[in-house]
Amino acid sequence: MADVRNILFIMCDQLRWDYLSSAGHPTLETPNIDALAAGGVQFSRAFVQSPVCGPSRMSAYTGRYMFNHGSSWNSVPLSIGERTLGDYLRPLGLRTVLIGKTHMAADTDGLARLGVDPVSEAGVLVSQCGFEPVERDDGLHPSGFVDPHLAYNEFLKARGYPGDNPWQDWANSAEGPDGEVLSGWLMRHARKPARVREEDSETPYMTDRAIDFIAAQGDVPWCMHLSFIKPHWPYMAPPPYNDLYGPNQCLGVKRDGRERAATHPVVAAFMDHPESVNFRRDEVRDTVIPTYMGLVKQIDDHLGRLFQAMDDQGRMDDTLIVFTSDHGDYLGDHWLGEKELFHEAIVRVPMIVRDPSPAADAARGTVDDRLIEAIDLVPTFIEAAGGTPPAHLMDGRSLLGALRGGGAGDAGGEAPWRDAVFSEVDYAFRSARTTLGLGPDEARAFMLRTTRWKYIHYEGFRPQLFDLEADPDEFDDLGEDAAHADVRAELRERLFAWLRRRKYRTTMDYAAVDVRTGNAHKRGIIVGEW
Amino acid sequence: MADVRNILFIMCDQLRWDYLSSAGHPTLETPNIDALAAGGVQFSRAFVQSPVCGPSRMSAYTGRYMFNHGSSWNSVPLSIGERTLGDYLRPLGLRTVLIGKTHMAADTDGLARLGVDPVSEAGVLVSQCGFEPVERDDGLHPSGFVDPHLAYNEFLKARGYPGDNPWQDWANSAEGPDGEVLSGWLMRHARKPARVREEDSETPYMTDRAIDFIAAQGDVPWCMHLSFIKPHWPYMAPPPYNDLYGPNQCLGVKRDGRERAATHPVVAAFMDHPESVNFRRDEVRDTVIPTYMGLVKQIDDHLGRLFQAMDDQGRMDDTLIVFTSDHGDYLGDHWLGEKELFHEAIVRVPMIVRDPSPAADAARGTVDDRLIEAIDLVPTFIEAAGGTPPAHLMDGRSLLGALRGGGAGDAGGEAPWRDAVFSEVDYAFRSARTTLGLGPDEARAFMLRTTRWKYIHYEGFRPQLFDLEADPDEFDDLGEDAAHADVRAELRERLFAWLRRRKYRTTMDYAAVDVRTGNAHKRGIIVGEW
Repeated sequence: MADVRNILFIMCDQLRWDYLSSAGHPTLETPNIDALAAGGVQFSRAFVQSPVCGPSRMSAYTGRYMFNHGSSWNSVPLSIGERTLGDYLRPLGLRTVLIGKTHMAADTDGLARLGVDPVSEAGVLVSQCGFEPVERDDGLHPSGFVDPHLAYNEFLKARGYPGDNPWQDWANSAEGPDGEVLSGWLMRHARKPARVREEDSETPYMTDRAIDFIAAQGDVPWCMHLSFIKPHWPYMAPPPYNDLYGPNQCLGVKRDGRERAATHPVVAAFMDHPESVNFRRDEVRDTVIPTYMGLVKQIDDHLGRLFQAMDDQGRMDDTLIVFTSDHGDYLGDHWLGEKELFHEAIVRVPMIVRDPSPAADAARGTVDDRLIEAIDLVPTFIEAAGGTPPAHLMDGRSLLGALRGGGAGDAGGEAPWRDAVFSEVDYAFRSARTTLGLGPDEARAFMLRTTRWKYIHYEGFRPQLFDLEADPDEFDDLGEDAAHADVRAELRERLFAWLRRRKYRTTMDYAAVDVRTGNAHKRGIIVGEW
Repeated sequence: MADVRNILFIMCDQLRWDYLSSAGHPTLETPNIDALAAGGVQFSRAFVQSPVCGPSRMSAYTGRYMFNHGSSWNSVPLSIGERTLGDYLRPLGLRTVLIGKTHMAADTDGLARLGVDPVSEAGVLVSQCGFEPVERDDGLHPSGFVDPHLAYNEFLKARGYPGDNPWQDWANSAEGPDGEVLSGWLMRHARKPARVREEDSETPYMTDRAIDFIAAQGDVPWCMHLSFIKPHWPYMAPPPYNDLYGPNQCLGVKRDGRERAATHPVVAAFMDHPESVNFRRDEVRDTVIPTYMGLVKQIDDHLGRLFQAMDDQGRMDDTLIVFTSDHGDYLGDHWLGEKELFHEAIVRVPMIVRDPSPAADAARGTVDDRLIEAIDLVPTFIEAAGGTPPAHLMDGRSLLGALRGGGAGDAGGEAPWRDAVFSEVDYAFRSARTTLGLGPDEARAFMLRTTRWKYIHYEGFRPQLFDLEADPDEFDDLGEDAAHADVRAELRERLFAWLRRRKYRTTMDYAAVDVRTGNAHKRGIIVGEW
């Protein structure tokens, strides 16, 4: 194997950490993802920096906490002041492209203020998280709001699917006995087969775009973000994936009566959301989860195809591959549906990294249980591509040391690995906020998770605390338990320290600071001399 | 009087709050500034958001705390993602210009990333804090580093002062008995007359630029930031201002033996800086302070000239005028020289606002002792110009309510006025940081000041606490006093809350958030329905 020349950054949307056979799922078999893990390192305790698509992704693309990059929910633009993966990798010689979803919203006000044409080269890049959008497709295209030029719809139309929006009417709808369209937006239809042929559905389509790109790119180095929309809703799979699994193959629901007694006010407000009310019903879970599993299986099958195509071209030998997700899905666990809170079902994600370098051989096939954050990927990629992660901007830390045997800290570094991970949410955009009577800047919560403890600060409300050793299912909220006051105080203090130390001086690197420290003299400035 | 059409935003550099006769200085008479106060409101407890030029100014120009705008010291570029005064006022019809100093460093990396030509219109504005630089002059031009096109040097040369850098060699130097140049960089020369004629020195020069601009602008609305370099060092005044005052007219030094016992480690490191060691000597104080006073007096005289010129053109009737400073000067108080810590001598500044509107008549000549922050100016200006300050970005609050009789809160608002002000420092660039063995992101401190208490959190060190009622001179550091543990805990908690609530979602306003809250349906997105 050669050293790293290319980077393949695969992200699924809404894929839980525990819905892979490599992570121990008893019935869902994902042999191709498992093989990736066998050839790399599986980080078993990896966490996203926000339990929502947009901010989680912006953290994954910037290497920075949500509180730093500021794009706190879906459609909140990422400021033109933030740098992203492509800004770092392009100067290192990697063509950095997107195939699939980012959930990026462009900072059009910022661009206008600087007079930057949004369709100029720089304008496009800063509007697309720094990626060259070979294929941008956020995977949600309700009729009436769909881009009339959506490439996937053009593809479907060319393949014979009629209508203005075959994404909705064919790929994400089923058909009734009388030929009527049954919308995939409604979960009741989840077990029915999508109207699209499997080979024309979204996952193979995006996989083909990736295979095409890699072939066309030849020996020119690249970083590709292959970003699947599935298993995100609409929960709708083409045959055979709609019918591969049944209710008796699903993981049992994780919920407990204690969670419905003295429920934390914010969690209670989320439990009142329609998706939570619905997912509380067995019928919903039994209908949705088998298809959710089928969608994961479909991704695994097509990843097998992708990896084979890469192998045929020698790309498995020079490509660093990451497989991860932007967050999980409650699927009824904890009496909740969807996402946006901090249970393991949501903030913990798959994180498999396969480094082709011979230096990584020793760790192949291992499971690494240190605490990982999704923001670690940007510095990992920079370092793998031969660069130096800018310490004044990166909240994450390179995983290269972990992959190549540097067990304790960063590659080449001496610092001990972190002993806590952080995640943040801005739920201003959800009904829970109005239920609770909060202003648009008051719906904030912060999670701090160590190996043992999960502490959640909700602005304006009491905290939550879970002892993950004694209570791995997070049923027993110790947020008001008198016996744990000291633990809460200690974790709260850590959160405070984290906020005080955040990286806000983004426009000058540490070397430039060091050069200036105490050196006004060198610029001819004489201060306070007699 | 008409309503506000123009805004004159006057800032001195390094002018303490207490070196004006309007603030009670017993010997320094500043009748023109006093007259401004008599015609407006004098805010007697106004504070800057950082005790250093650059970050204090960036807060004053953005309306945001340093931790939010990120430009934490002199020459740290303000990110292209930040908006400044001109971005708000130009759309409201005010030509927004700079005459004098800003200490802005352009975010050249950010501009390059977006392909913005720094000399394009947008490029110039974003590089100059949003001001149209009618005359940019930061007032520090050591030979060897001076801009060869500096307008003030061109002026001096045309007025007959020879050499490459008459700013240094004439305006900021004196002359020895044998005609030798005595550098103003050295404080020993402070009492000597500058070699420049008074009418050619910096303060009248900048005043003339302001008068010229106002005359040329006629009836077209404007906001002018008239930003004097003085009384900042080099402490050098032209005659007669070098000799107007003597040592017996200076304020007595504010220092106490208690400050030298059990000194806080960070303060102790600053006490070891050369400027502190020098200012501890009576000879230094007796040499520097009379000239410092003379430089203030010179500003007052030329402001008299400016106000007369404005009055002659009717501009006193339609111009909102602010007179303030970016921070103070220790001048030996507290055993310190220069600035960068949080004593009142540094963070408290003059703040006089004269509103020409008839609605402001009732408050003319009053002293308002509520707690004011320099970040209040941007929202004040926006509101005075007929706009609405963007709440999602503004850390400051409009003073218009205070000026026009809305005593309790913002103009038109119901919220009570703040009961604490904040200031922050990043002393990574000072020798104190290396003395203390800190990394480039570890030299941080935060001040929280209420009417009674001043609490300072130093990252990595014990806090300081002062009881400003019992100890207005801040001699008695209660940072480790057992009897005040509760006070410290309460103030520390407020600092924590302040950090948690900071405004980081900068790219979407509250109205846009409210429109989206719970309304995915309206965009065709159906979530979690059965």
